[in-house]
Amino acid sequence: MKQRIVLASNSPRRQQLLTDLGLEFEVAPSKINELDYAMSSGKALAAILSVAKAQDVAEDFPLSIVIGCDTVVEVDGMLLGKPQNESEARKMLEMLSGKTHTVYTGIAIACRGQVKNEVVITKVNFKELSSEEIDRYIASGEPFDKAGAYAIQGKGSTLVSSIEGDYFAVVGLPVFTLARMLEQHFDLHVL
Amino acid sequence: MKQRIVLASNSPRRQQLLTDLGLEFEVAPSKINELDYAMSSGKALAAILSVAKAQDVAEDFPLSIVIGCDTVVEVDGMLLGKPQNESEARKMLEMLSGKTHTVYTGIAIACRGQVKNEVVITKVNFKELSSEEIDRYIASGEPFDKAGAYAIQGKGSTLVSSIEGDYFAVVGLPVFTLARMLEQHFDLHVL
Repeated sequence: MKQRIVLASNSPRRQQLLTDLGLEFEVAPSKINELDYAMSSGKALAAILSVAKAQDVAEDFPLSIVIGCDTVVEVDGMLLGKPQNESEARKMLEMLSGKTHTVYTGIAIACRGQVKNEVVITKVNFKELSSEEIDRYIASGEPFDKAGAYAIQGKGSTLVSSIEGDYFAVVGLPVFTLARMLEQHFDLHVL
Repeated sequence: MKQRIVLASNSPRRQQLLTDLGLEFEVAPSKINELDYAMSSGKALAAILSVAKAQDVAEDFPLSIVIGCDTVVEVDGMLLGKPQNESEARKMLEMLSGKTHTVYTGIAIACRGQVKNEVVITKVNFKELSSEEIDRYIASGEPFDKAGAYAIQGKGSTLVSSIEGDYFAVVGLPVFTLARMLEQHFDLHVL
């Protein structure tokens, strides 16, 4: 019998990346509230949130492969979540301007009571942003619902000069690591 | 009067990236045959081909901003173009397996008899590929029409463990550099 795959996320970007891999899957967002979690380390937070999301949805899909993801942005020792309003978005973009920050992407696969979990780390180099550029980027609406108030795809691509690591981890689904985990733990070959 | 923008490329990926930036543009592929050019340096080849493509199309659009791009893959001092058949694709993927290679992406903007040109350099780390993985990737059809016989988006994303540089340059259109050039030379702000 073919193993069902469930993505524990409503993010259209993550759904698109899984579709690009040629995988068939269902979508079931978790009821985890990211704001309920506060930890000192970006890596630990991304790990715990991805596991929490996968386990939450696995309760409804105990026999499926349930994939949970979480992305945390860390700059100057501060963790940035999703901005709740324009003023938070502006503050975050000012913090990222002209600096290198770290993106921690947690990926968890829950299946039959077991959870496998990894965190992918990517360095992202931001250009120096003028106050007008920040205004225009906020006006585009793109910063909202994005950890760190930017999207590396779309208009945000003009803010990022370069990265070191996995681009797709910054988008929100580390496909290289996911493919390896599916192969290693479930003998499921994407290629 | 608003400056017309023309993309000198038929690549749907490049067209999508320009669309994502919110730019309006027309598409006019160049008649440049990449196989007619052979140079020793990947950087020089990417520069010359991007300029040749932009200038070729600029003959028909002398008053427009014409954008030409070219991507060259270099590994172990060898330049890889687009594979012409399965056997060439297999040879290229065997060369890239388990190694770091360099992608040179030339971008040229031709307008009113002038051409601006830059080359963006990105390092790409490939995982070690088994002979079966190479077979399956070739069977997916993705290697054809791609420099170096792979796409960093799609199924090819499971072959690339990490990059250093601009992901979009590897896809074929270095949007960060393009946005900077449009701002610098044409006072055209993407953001």
